[in-house]
Amino acid sequence: MLKVDLNSDLGEGYGAYEIGDDARMLSIVTSANVACGFHAGDPEIMAQTFRIARENGVAVGAHPGFPDIAGFGRRRISFSANEIERIIAYQIGAAQALAVYAGHQLTHVKAHGALGNIAAAEPDVAKAVARAVKAVDPSLALIAIALSELVPAGQAEQLSVIHEIYADRAFGENRQLVPRGRPGALIEDGDQAATHVLDMIQAKAVITVEGRRHPTPIDTICVHGDSPHAVAVAQCVRKRLEAAGVSLQSFSKKAT
Amino acid sequence: MLKVDLNSDLGEGYGAYEIGDDARMLSIVTSANVACGFHAGDPEIMAQTFRIARENGVAVGAHPGFPDIAGFGRRRISFSANEIERIIAYQIGAAQALAVYAGHQLTHVKAHGALGNIAAAEPDVAKAVARAVKAVDPSLALIAIALSELVPAGQAEQLSVIHEIYADRAFGENRQLVPRGRPGALIEDGDQAATHVLDMIQAKAVITVEGRRHPTPIDTICVHGDSPHAVAVAQCVRKRLEAAGVSLQSFSKKAT
Amino acid sequence: MLKVDLNSDLGEGYGAYEIGDDARMLSIVTSANVACGFHAGDPEIMAQTFRIARENGVAVGAHPGFPDIAGFGRRRISFSANEIERIIAYQIGAAQALAVYAGHQLTHVKAHGALGNIAAAEPDVAKAVARAVKAVDPSLALIAIALSELVPAGQAEQLSVIHEIYADRAFGENRQLVPRGRPGALIEDGDQAATHVLDMIQAKAVITVEGRRHPTPIDTICVHGDSPHAVAVAQCVRKRLEAAGVSLQSFSKKAT
Amino acid sequence: MLKVDLNSDLGEGYGAYEIGDDARMLSIVTSANVACGFHAGDPEIMAQTFRIARENGVAVGAHPGFPDIAGFGRRRISFSANEIERIIAYQIGAAQALAVYAGHQLTHVKAHGALGNIAAAEPDVAKAVARAVKAVDPSLALIAIALSELVPAGQAEQLSVIHEIYADRAFGENRQLVPRGRPGALIEDGDQAATHVLDMIQAKAVITVEGRRHPTPIDTICVHGDSPHAVAVAQCVRKRLEAAGVSLQSFSKKAT
Repeated sequence: MLKVDLNSDLGEGYGAYEIGDDARMLSIVTSANVACGFHAGDPEIMAQTFRIARENGVAVGAHPGFPDIAGFGRRRISFSANEIERIIAYQIGAAQALAVYAGHQLTHVKAHGALGNIAAAEPDVAKAVARAVKAVDPSLALIAIALSELVPAGQAEQLSVIHEIYADRAFGENRQLVPRGRPGALIEDGDQAATHVLDMIQAKAVITVEGRRHPTPIDTICVHGDSPHAVAVAQCVRKRLEAAGVSLQSFSKKAT
Repeated sequence: MLKVDLNSDLGEGYGAYEIGDDARMLSIVTSANVACGFHAGDPEIMAQTFRIARENGVAVGAHPGFPDIAGFGRRRISFSANEIERIIAYQIGAAQALAVYAGHQLTHVKAHGALGNIAAAEPDVAKAVARAVKAVDPSLALIAIALSELVPAGQAEQLSVIHEIYADRAFGENRQLVPRGRPGALIEDGDQAATHVLDMIQAKAVITVEGRRHPTPIDTICVHGDSPHAVAVAQCVRKRLEAAGVSLQSFSKKAT
Repeated sequence: MLKVDLNSDLGEGYGAYEIGDDARMLSIVTSANVACGFHAGDPEIMAQTFRIARENGVAVGAHPGFPDIAGFGRRRISFSANEIERIIAYQIGAAQALAVYAGHQLTHVKAHGALGNIAAAEPDVAKAVARAVKAVDPSLALIAIALSELVPAGQAEQLSVIHEIYADRAFGENRQLVPRGRPGALIEDGDQAATHVLDMIQAKAVITVEGRRHPTPIDTICVHGDSPHAVAVAQCVRKRLEAAGVSLQSFSKKAT
Repeated sequence: MLKVDLNSDLGEGYGAYEIGDDARMLSIVTSANVACGFHAGDPEIMAQTFRIARENGVAVGAHPGFPDIAGFGRRRISFSANEIERIIAYQIGAAQALAVYAGHQLTHVKAHGALGNIAAAEPDVAKAVARAVKAVDPSLALIAIALSELVPAGQAEQLSVIHEIYADRAFGENRQLVPRGRPGALIEDGDQAATHVLDMIQAKAVITVEGRRHPTPIDTICVHGDSPHAVAVAQCVRKRLEAAGVSLQSFSKKAT
């Protein structure tokens, strides 16, 4: 029987600011990537997100980003790979502490936004991310976009690498996500997203916009939590996967 | 034989900004309280401070403060006690991760600046600090100003409470530190500071500016790292203590 | 004929974060107080808010607060009165520049959140606010809660003082706003808010929760922009005032 | 008679953090570029720097940078040119207000660090900087590295463009500053710096490391304030220029 994890980036509010419907998303997904205070999230929101995730049986991970609340972590900042290693270690630790504080525990790490993009594309940064996870807690899994530079980087550090595809994003011919803003980059219809995902899971491959197949394990599917249709898309993907006999569960043994 | 720990607040630079001569202080003290990025310190400086401390055999603790780089954590910010609990948990975790990253491990927690002052004086905040330490890692010791509200708060959570006096600060008749800016608050001469400390260690009591004695265990002595005479004062205190037969060592079994 | 200004705190998003429906509020109010980047607002949002205000013929003011995005400026931070003077001067200047950049110009200053509360209650802070406005641009009006310490402070600096009441907040027996969280502090029904306002305008007095009247000029009415019912309340207040023959217009000659 | 301005980046401390000996630099230079709170500087330091500059008869300008205290504005952040326009407008306004507050007035704008580097090299950013100055106050001069993209960008907006060379930095064959870190990039000896500057002033040209001459007006010389030898280098350059009959004075008529 096929099984897969469903993950979403949550806890992305800041102080009085809210983004997304975390409570509902936490009733749908099996893993939550929780912002760590650098691009979003503050200790109040982190502790609350970890607590609600625990109550819903949802596995949690650290979701570190560049230090840039105003830019929501979407702006590239010219940190060196070594500096990136330290800002990720810092954020993992902060998330670990607040997860434990909330009676939960981290299972994984997933880089956010601009940091995630360059970790997927640039070997030096990918290695820095993997080294940070390894140094802080080698039992944490590393979510890596399927076929990206993070996959070999995490494997080289003997981390558990979780291959990820996106329900709501298309892969281009270069085997990377089509950048936001390009036509066809975003898949906003729930059924279309579900079909997109099911095709890839059954093919055991990334399928690009032009239909080419690149074999890869697929361990987790990302659904975004901050778009207006997020909840509907996530629900639809979940239902269609279950209807197709795919079991939805966290990739982590810790989470069970 | 009497023994005592000598602690200092270090790693208090930020980016290109430097404060104090950390390298020399780390050759004198037995414990370092390392800023966690909220009032000072950034991941680069934290990792470096933990590394140099390890190389010098100096025990390290988290030194959380209010989120206020511009105010160096000296401004009170009206966080509730519950919010303080979470900002401390966050900072402890960040420090734990970077200590482990640097091959070291935390032994303790000490609140900084305005946060430290209100934790010493206000039972609700003292309890919040103790709960944060307990929740994140109950094996961490809690440095508490001798006779302050943090002592019973830490004990109520079964934490190892480390009673602290200051080499360079006087105690007032209310058994609290004389606020900076008041006459006699600061002791800037090394020999005077050493005498001040030795008198209290031998008396096993806090001795106030008017000479009254309040019995208390004394486990650690704080010497500040950021004044112009910091290194000289710390060296003098260390020498005079050793000459008087007091053994200088970390309070932590982990550290040895 | 009676006339009054209708003001709202707008431009309070931050980066990707949004609060309130600024576009609709700017079609209702006659003056907008624009966050200046310390507690909310960033240069993008400021420029955009000034531009839309200009297009709608809405007067604009600087809305300075404490530097605390995570706390939305609602936390008191222990700045001295002199330091407050400088953080307000800074924010007025930033707002002036972006207003001019957007083809508009500032007419006034109104302190936000915790800063506004202490400026209303504490003479030293009230004087600091008035001095900052005077120093940067004495032609700017100062919005002051009616009967508050800001009224005499602004007058002493020869500023144009704009007496303000709140459509959605009650005055207590101490002639100050009933603190949020107390019963009766908030008036969430549009008709009730409109009646509350009309009674005071016609009485030329603040009317407290117990019905006592304290005579004062009333130059502007604040309607909040960030509550779920904000737009409905503002529309209702505006309609009821117009129906009662009260002319809604900015207090500023500059704005016309 | 030849005349030239001597400028330095000052007011680059932050809260308790200090960098450079501003008081002594302000007794040597004729113009100060004052950090505006984004990469360094806070309202206290800004007001104080403007006040001391006024007392010393030193002209002052805004020195805007990327929002990055931890990186001292030296990290590139992927803002669009339009966003850069707004962050510069914001900072100019803040500086104008605090200059006026301190009894002084701005004469110019000079971009800092990474922002300055890309404004010199990338036409889109150069134009954005010029548009920001033009929009906020077209009477402000724009300091532009000689031969850089900022020169035509400022001229296209009819700004007064001040052509700048560096006493302590070499120009490469591409007519740009040799990047820090490359051999020969920095000139740390005072006499060597003075000779470097005098040669260019007398040649009315930038002279590159390989001796090639590129004719350009030279209106101002930058001496850095934050290196250990800053004061000595600045003093030496000033003396040698005066001895050679070059008159040192601000480029601005406002400043006299």
